[in-house]
Amino acid sequence: MKLNFKNDYNTVGDKRILEELIKYSDERNIGYGEDIHSAELNKIVNKILGLNTDTYVLAGGTVTNIVALNQILKYPYEAVITGENSHINIHETGAIEATGHKIILTPLKDGKIDISKIRDTYNLYVDNHMVMPKALYLSNANELGLTYTLSELKEISKICKELNLYFFIDGARLPIALVSEGYSLKDIASVCDMFYIGGTKNGLPYGELLIIINDELKTNFKYLLKNKLGMLAKGYVGAIMFKKYLEDDYYLTLANNSLLMSNIIRDKLDKYLIYKNKTNQIYIKLNKADALKLTEYVDFEIWENNDKYQVIRLVTAFNTTEKEVSDLINVFKNLNLI
Amino acid sequence: MKLNFKNDYNTVGDKRILEELIKYSDERNIGYGEDIHSAELNKIVNKILGLNTDTYVLAGGTVTNIVALNQILKYPYEAVITGENSHINIHETGAIEATGHKIILTPLKDGKIDISKIRDTYNLYVDNHMVMPKALYLSNANELGLTYTLSELKEISKICKELNLYFFIDGARLPIALVSEGYSLKDIASVCDMFYIGGTKNGLPYGELLIIINDELKTNFKYLLKNKLGMLAKGYVGAIMFKKYLEDDYYLTLANNSLLMSNIIRDKLDKYLIYKNKTNQIYIKLNKADALKLTEYVDFEIWENNDKYQVIRLVTAFNTTEKEVSDLINVFKNLNLI
Amino acid sequence: MKLNFKNDYNTVGDKRILEELIKYSDERNIGYGEDIHSAELNKIVNKILGLNTDTYVLAGGTVTNIVALNQILKYPYEAVITGENSHINIHETGAIEATGHKIILTPLKDGKIDISKIRDTYNLYVDNHMVMPKALYLSNANELGLTYTLSELKEISKICKELNLYFFIDGARLPIALVSEGYSLKDIASVCDMFYIGGTKNGLPYGELLIIINDELKTNFKYLLKNKLGMLAKGYVGAIMFKKYLEDDYYLTLANNSLLMSNIIRDKLDKYLIYKNKTNQIYIKLNKADALKLTEYVDFEIWENNDKYQVIRLVTAFNTTEKEVSDLINVFKNLNLI
Amino acid sequence: MKLNFKNDYNTVGDKRILEELIKYSDERNIGYGEDIHSAELNKIVNKILGLNTDTYVLAGGTVTNIVALNQILKYPYEAVITGENSHINIHETGAIEATGHKIILTPLKDGKIDISKIRDTYNLYVDNHMVMPKALYLSNANELGLTYTLSELKEISKICKELNLYFFIDGARLPIALVSEGYSLKDIASVCDMFYIGGTKNGLPYGELLIIINDELKTNFKYLLKNKLGMLAKGYVGAIMFKKYLEDDYYLTLANNSLLMSNIIRDKLDKYLIYKNKTNQIYIKLNKADALKLTEYVDFEIWENNDKYQVIRLVTAFNTTEKEVSDLINVFKNLNLI
Repeated sequence: MKLNFKNDYNTVGDKRILEELIKYSDERNIGYGEDIHSAELNKIVNKILGLNTDTYVLAGGTVTNIVALNQILKYPYEAVITGENSHINIHETGAIEATGHKIILTPLKDGKIDISKIRDTYNLYVDNHMVMPKALYLSNANELGLTYTLSELKEISKICKELNLYFFIDGARLPIALVSEGYSLKDIASVCDMFYIGGTKNGLPYGELLIIINDELKTNFKYLLKNKLGMLAKGYVGAIMFKKYLEDDYYLTLANNSLLMSNIIRDKLDKYLIYKNKTNQIYIKLNKADALKLTEYVDFEIWENNDKYQVIRLVTAFNTTEKEVSDLINVFKNLNLI
Repeated sequence: MKLNFKNDYNTVGDKRILEELIKYSDERNIGYGEDIHSAELNKIVNKILGLNTDTYVLAGGTVTNIVALNQILKYPYEAVITGENSHINIHETGAIEATGHKIILTPLKDGKIDISKIRDTYNLYVDNHMVMPKALYLSNANELGLTYTLSELKEISKICKELNLYFFIDGARLPIALVSEGYSLKDIASVCDMFYIGGTKNGLPYGELLIIINDELKTNFKYLLKNKLGMLAKGYVGAIMFKKYLEDDYYLTLANNSLLMSNIIRDKLDKYLIYKNKTNQIYIKLNKADALKLTEYVDFEIWENNDKYQVIRLVTAFNTTEKEVSDLINVFKNLNLI
Repeated sequence: MKLNFKNDYNTVGDKRILEELIKYSDERNIGYGEDIHSAELNKIVNKILGLNTDTYVLAGGTVTNIVALNQILKYPYEAVITGENSHINIHETGAIEATGHKIILTPLKDGKIDISKIRDTYNLYVDNHMVMPKALYLSNANELGLTYTLSELKEISKICKELNLYFFIDGARLPIALVSEGYSLKDIASVCDMFYIGGTKNGLPYGELLIIINDELKTNFKYLLKNKLGMLAKGYVGAIMFKKYLEDDYYLTLANNSLLMSNIIRDKLDKYLIYKNKTNQIYIKLNKADALKLTEYVDFEIWENNDKYQVIRLVTAFNTTEKEVSDLINVFKNLNLI
Repeated sequence: MKLNFKNDYNTVGDKRILEELIKYSDERNIGYGEDIHSAELNKIVNKILGLNTDTYVLAGGTVTNIVALNQILKYPYEAVITGENSHINIHETGAIEATGHKIILTPLKDGKIDISKIRDTYNLYVDNHMVMPKALYLSNANELGLTYTLSELKEISKICKELNLYFFIDGARLPIALVSEGYSLKDIASVCDMFYIGGTKNGLPYGELLIIINDELKTNFKYLLKNKLGMLAKGYVGAIMFKKYLEDDYYLTLANNSLLMSNIIRDKLDKYLIYKNKTNQIYIKLNKADALKLTEYVDFEIWENNDKYQVIRLVTAFNTTEKEVSDLINVFKNLNLI
């Protein structure tokens, strides 16, 4: 069987989390997130953050992005600023526009939003013939596995406050950013108005935990959640899973495995690396012939493809084993690539 | 602790289903429903139905309704006909309108769509100053626990074909309708263009299995699924669950328990029954004082509430026990209600 | 040639208004309503109303309704209450739903909104699984030519304040309501948050004058106006027309002609009248054979049509002549209908 | 009084057109474009083009763009390709996104769409996580006053056919393109699926004439026109104006004046020209001090503004006089700019 380094959501989920579901399977709960597990989860988050937040578990990243941005953007002329390579711009099949809002692109620098250009981008929007920027969106870690440093996030936060932009962080891969950068959930909460902690890409069968920091964004959230298709009947299922996920920083334990395994791979494939990132996404550039040979032994994502070379992505997961990693390395060795 | 007869989605899910997730928890799969479990599930469904359908697992009922109707309704002037009490009209926080489409209401008769009035409703829409009816939606069983007979469904199907309306059946509670009415999935598939088999309300932690019968409605479905927030990264999780759910008609076994338990209750509460239905939703009318006393011992949904009386709903689930039922009966006895 | 009593928008417009356009045809103006005519029009309106309003001229009734309601309704779960026969519900091809908002229907009484039922309608919307009522919409005069008395409007206004509903009056036929009921623009402005003075149906080639009373609804209006397709490049054209239209109550003079002509017709056709209204829309019921004969001589709208009878609508306009009216009466006489 | 070279829609309209309205002011017509003038206009257009088209008059450019593109794009995942500087992307306050569709940007070359890059842009959209390109939009003349040659348009047309993209031409300034490039309406109709002939920017008080060439795009257009707020009650008013506008190529006569007057200005301001275009929009670059002096005597649009210089736009209109032009030249002379 082929090795699978295609993504970080390629197994059902972590057993410890799944067993938690069986443990509670007979307990009767109230629906739609009005249950005690959801209330407890909120308390846990608030204790971690030292804040009074509202918390909701949604099924996946795209629906979380769309619900969150629609809570921020009211009128259809209100727009979100982001980078060209961001998930909402490229990989959500136009979902944000489908809810009526335009994306404003701001320049990138080395794969991340160029912080020095945000004000310029904002300042282009000058009158009522143009949309009105109201939010800034970024992913951390982003699609390229790149992370923002805490000082970068603080700088962005400052600019957003100055420009009256709400700052929303897509945290589908936040756990890996935390272990990679060494900052905490509390740090993240201190810079933005809303963010989420991804579960799907770090060991949960589904689930993203949306955390609303800014009180202005809390009003009537569940109306929007239902209207925008994000409300789950069995809200307590997500809450049970996230309670376990947060307990004793288990989400960091899971992310740490992804990081460690990716570090081993990065070390061996150093000469092929495209980005000097330190997360579980490894982008390498191979000549075309080598990439084709590799494809016989390993499942991976092709990011760029032309006559001469391919840029491919290898991703480690919360449960990637040392065996899988050494098997991968051996494939590269056997193909004389390293 | 109070008895809970509030709804049929008040526990995590059936253990046999949950254990299936643990069984496959180490297997690496492709994302977004392109995996082998999703392919197998499709084969299983096609074998059951004797048809060549497309199948997709979505997270919940509302998102399934909205995605399905948006696949049917293209232009924003195209509208869906349904009854006033239908889920999309009353209990989805305007989600269908939020995607741009109007609901046309057709008269009810005893809580179900009055079949003899569908043509009249359709015929009111005569020119381009009005919306254009393009679909008919109903739930089976519906919100009141009422089911359509097979001959009723066939009659509706015939009318829809005549009027060029696509016929979509919301099957969030289809399993209970099947065991109550005694018809089969094949029967359902023969009358409509698209329907779904509910999982959330019959033992799954989440999940509805959407089945597209009509070839015209298959094109580019996954684009819409992603755009309308219904695509799940771990599509194989839903597929694994539904394979088990359909195996040896396990979904009917689960629904049968709901039915049997509700039959016992209906038998005892006969004099209070509002509807002569035979599904797991039991609507009873109690005088106000009695209803208030009951509320101390039992969790239930209040459907109507005034100074004199309450209409309340008691719901049995796939895992309601005989003990819970006899405890409920005893509460009624102790309150001298029966 | 046939007589034409089909509607009140069947001629290009009043000559005095049109000549005003020629008078100013060489003057160079700023676009998009930033011109001096638009500013002057605003001053004139504010002087008439004794208020500090914002004013905008839009092209037609439907776009005015949609822009106005979208300024009021922000989030897609916010809904507008209106009667089943209202223009936005029946005759705008689902335009309001196309912008994402649901219409909530409240019962009618004799063709108008039943004021005593508004609270009940509102109170049905109790939780986040349902839309949230945020506005009340009615037309005055409405589609049936019926008007609300000032005391009725004040009662509705009071209820709206109590329920936190914004009250928006569609005034496509407001001028005829004013001359019929004897109240003033100032009266209208005192009861609602936003309304408009129709021009298209009372002598203008196009144009509705939207007036925003409530300060909360003024913010960023032109962003929405452009986004929702209502902004006109040559805003000053509408302003020039409306300045003339309001000058010396010329709009009332025009509406008065419609009223007088309709009164003559109503007087003669008394026995056929469906509604005891006093506006320029006259609904009569004729047996089928008579209606068919009439159709050879007169253009009119058919409102209801069955084997036995037709309900037809005769409409007088700002420029309906006494000759046209007496010709119409003669047709009825010649057909032995009166 | 200041000279006004701010835009080409700064006067009510051409007298000959306006007088046409007075001429027909007493004639009673059917509403909503079902009248004889609209039918005659369609015949005139079909005779000019030698085609069987559908034609509609809408109020302005933005609403025409949005209605046209919504007729082309059905599902919300269908997107339109255009250049970064296009009207729908920059100057319509997000109106196209507000109807649910994403804009895909394709690279520009010297201010126009880079034809050689269209296929590359298209080919980026490869799977159901991304939107699906379905239309190509451009303005001719565009926002910068630039025109496409006939051979360029034919090349684009060929690419669109190859890629299954519908080709829609925004003709808000088509008349000036026609007189500048020397091609005909027939040429335009031969390359695209839908286009419009602008009236607002060439002598009409309002109005754009949308022409549907491709039969696939004709179905149920008026439903969409009403739903998307473009239907005018007095459709015959626009038809009366456009009949005159097209008679004896009067629209070209009007555009010719704009062109001639702009040619004189361009000739004198040659050294300041930014673009070597030949239409009524003249972009010049002045140092900041000069631009500020100019602003005392002339109204114009500022396109770019920084500490050192301004790019400003001077626009001639259908009725710009030789006197206005020589006055403008004199201002430049008096300021020692030429």
